[in-house]
Amino acid sequence: MTNNTFDFIGGENGEWKVISINTLCGASLEPVQYLDILPNLKNLPRNGIWKLTGFTSNVRYAEKEEREKLIAVQEDLGRSLATCAALIPIRKKESWWTMAQDERRKIFESKSHHTETGLKYLPAIARRLYHCRDIGQPFDFLTWFEYAQEDSDKFEELLFSLRKTEEWKYIDREIDIRLVKV
Amino acid sequence: MTNNTFDFIGGENGEWKVISINTLCGASLEPVQYLDILPNLKNLPRNGIWKLTGFTSNVRYAEKEEREKLIAVQEDLGRSLATCAALIPIRKKESWWTMAQDERRKIFESKSHHTETGLKYLPAIARRLYHCRDIGQPFDFLTWFEYAQEDSDKFEELLFSLRKTEEWKYIDREIDIRLVKV
Repeated sequence: MTNNTFDFIGGENGEWKVISINTLCGASLEPVQYLDILPNLKNLPRNGIWKLTGFTSNVRYAEKEEREKLIAVQEDLGRSLATCAALIPIRKKESWWTMAQDERRKIFESKSHHTETGLKYLPAIARRLYHCRDIGQPFDFLTWFEYAQEDSDKFEELLFSLRKTEEWKYIDREIDIRLVKV
Repeated sequence: MTNNTFDFIGGENGEWKVISINTLCGASLEPVQYLDILPNLKNLPRNGIWKLTGFTSNVRYAEKEEREKLIAVQEDLGRSLATCAALIPIRKKESWWTMAQDERRKIFESKSHHTETGLKYLPAIARRLYHCRDIGQPFDFLTWFEYAQEDSDKFEELLFSLRKTEEWKYIDREIDIRLVKV
């Protein structure tokens, strides 16, 4: 049994109402009104209009000190004040994946300060990373963020910072889906 | 569609004949006569007695120089001379997975010389790593090795070296299945 795998189902009902779908690069996704996040089951209660599947996993780049800082300050998903969310599925180029671990780490942190930047916006922005490259999905990652309405500007700032990094040059598909809790 | 995911099916027929199943630690697997490795499909042609599923992925620890050395010298699977094989499913303790990337890398290479040791036995021993921790499987990895009968001693030496490393202290389930090509 997998309890780390989830389906993101876009369709006509769900816990989150879609307020915008903005395709930044690569192919778009069909417009949907609502999104639900459900544990991955062989027989889904419904299929919706599209379904993206991803799993949580161990950390891939964070080093000991960074990980401890993250754990000390990050918040869980599902806070009642966090009524805003973003689902940003991304895919990276093949040239990213054929790099060795140290080459990817160098771009991820030494050059792009991915963890360092994320830390600045904790605990306001809660986030979770779902992996999906290895399971035949159209994206490599489903990135998920939850925050209070009053932290919306912080979230835009975080995205702006990440999108201008060297790491982001390796992204060839990115769709920014904004949601509010129903 | 996933083309990186494979089923290892133990049963009453298959391309590889099982000559021994030796449980080194943790729960055993039911004895089987044969093994087949087939692309993972929703509707399997047969289920066998047990089925283990794993996917190939990007490198997780090898650094640029190590990766280049590996690529330069390693051989593909399926060589006609490689009539011997080993399937060694392993699982690592939770304490391994909760470590940060640099902590795991330190044990994997600086202390245990995993890649360096493997390199010594290339190209004689061809190998492939299948990941399965993230997809709800009973093991974390399915490790697969192929070699000629005359390189059997080299293979035993490689296993002996790896099993006495610090990395191996984190393994809590390991089954060593030896096979010959039918």
